[in-house]
Amino acid sequence: VKTTLRSGEKSVVIDTEGPFVIIGERINPTGRKKLGDQLMARNTGYVRDLALGQVAVGADILDINVGMAGVDEVVMLKDVLVEVKRVVDVPLCIDTANVEALAAALSIMAPGKPLVNSVNGGDTSLGTVLPIVRQFGTAVIGLAMDDNGISNDPEVRLSIASRIVERAAMIGIPEEDVIIDPLVLSVGTDSDAGVVSLQTIELVRRSLGVNVVLGASNVSFGLPDRRTLNRAFLGLAIGAGATCAITDPLSVGLTVRAIDLLRGRDSYAARYINLYRSIQQRSE
Amino acid sequence: VKTTLRSGEKSVVIDTEGPFVIIGERINPTGRKKLGDQLMARNTGYVRDLALGQVAVGADILDINVGMAGVDEVVMLKDVLVEVKRVVDVPLCIDTANVEALAAALSIMAPGKPLVNSVNGGDTSLGTVLPIVRQFGTAVIGLAMDDNGISNDPEVRLSIASRIVERAAMIGIPEEDVIIDPLVLSVGTDSDAGVVSLQTIELVRRSLGVNVVLGASNVSFGLPDRRTLNRAFLGLAIGAGATCAITDPLSVGLTVRAIDLLRGRDSYAARYINLYRSIQQRSE
Repeated sequence: VKTTLRSGEKSVVIDTEGPFVIIGERINPTGRKKLGDQLMARNTGYVRDLALGQVAVGADILDINVGMAGVDEVVMLKDVLVEVKRVVDVPLCIDTANVEALAAALSIMAPGKPLVNSVNGGDTSLGTVLPIVRQFGTAVIGLAMDDNGISNDPEVRLSIASRIVERAAMIGIPEEDVIIDPLVLSVGTDSDAGVVSLQTIELVRRSLGVNVVLGASNVSFGLPDRRTLNRAFLGLAIGAGATCAITDPLSVGLTVRAIDLLRGRDSYAARYINLYRSIQQRSE
Repeated sequence: VKTTLRSGEKSVVIDTEGPFVIIGERINPTGRKKLGDQLMARNTGYVRDLALGQVAVGADILDINVGMAGVDEVVMLKDVLVEVKRVVDVPLCIDTANVEALAAALSIMAPGKPLVNSVNGGDTSLGTVLPIVRQFGTAVIGLAMDDNGISNDPEVRLSIASRIVERAAMIGIPEEDVIIDPLVLSVGTDSDAGVVSLQTIELVRRSLGVNVVLGASNVSFGLPDRRTLNRAFLGLAIGAGATCAITDPLSVGLTVRAIDLLRGRDSYAARYINLYRSIQQRSE
């Protein structure tokens, strides 16, 4: 299965048989005070730095989230998108829980094809988000949870994922434009959390065949040396069938390229070595 | 399948359903000049440091190799084993291509049950090593290669592994005492080398069911940032079914414990957090 996303000039294909795709997570004020302060001041200069910096270290797509108290998302999301599009030519992932802000944002994205983050399996979410996805012809991330919350049973997560794919198909969104997030909770609070996510990934890939996106860094919450855990999880999750992740390219980009190389998806180690050199140059 | 190894007092079980087992690789003079010099001088003090250091950072078993030009392996292997047994109580992996040195070493290991490293699928190797393994009741590592060398075809590697398990069974060595090494070549020289090893691991686990050991660090030979590649390979290989590795616990120990935790094989993150603290204490 191939999910094709587009910016103005460039296409990125998330392909179950291809290299892993990195969606840079850093344009998101949650837990990032400096970005929050800049957004409050309606200053987009720092956003520009974050966009350029992530693309330079291997982000294929950028997630854009401006949600925080005191920010008018309808206005700010558009402003930030305009600024990011001005400096980098990569597809974007529009990350908002505000439906009005989502529709306003998508209205300025043509002729690009962004990724919408996200819909879940609850009726309200399906009923409001999917029609917008259909209207603007985008792709969408479907979270394997519904109004009852997040189940600990991989089969329940699979059935919610199936429901999202079916409901999308009913209104004309093809299955290749739905990317499932299996959801990842912290192994610091529940030792089985990793296994549940890994099994969900395997089930979704085997039963539905669609692309699978990770929000990889939750898995290590509350534990020491989170980088080691996040990187280790990528190997396991990609082996299980994950095809892209919303993550920090600076922290895990080289690990992702290493995994591609080890899985025979990087001829002559070209992408691994190029990224290694880019990182070296930036740190000099 | 469970492979049980024993030192004087302690058992270590390599279990296809259990946590991953680390066999410390550092007592081996290849590429370690300081150790080579000490062995030439018949000084075992540094060997003692290497043994204690590796166990402190999570080695479950220690590999012992003293093979180098100018060293009488028959004498030196025994001397080093005596010294290591004196300071640490973990099972040992006797790593030698010298059959006389192997037999002499095993004669002083009772009542322990070490691991013999290694036999391959060639007739000479099978005919000389397996009888010694049988005589001393040890376990053995079987390399998935024969007198024709290392194949690039995972099915050929599997057939050699099957042959080793069968030949062992014929003289009374149970299958749980044969651990297969799928062999790992560098992705720096052949971009498909990782895939071939990962497929061999899956085939061996599915067809033979036995334990699988990695000599993990070859995979990154000739490439920059070998640690990132070696750690990434562990996630993929363990996901594919590898159950132990001969590797550097200082470099990959925490990654291995992270993988166990993420696979639900470390309740309450106890081993991960303990190892993290041990490493912190040693670096203070």
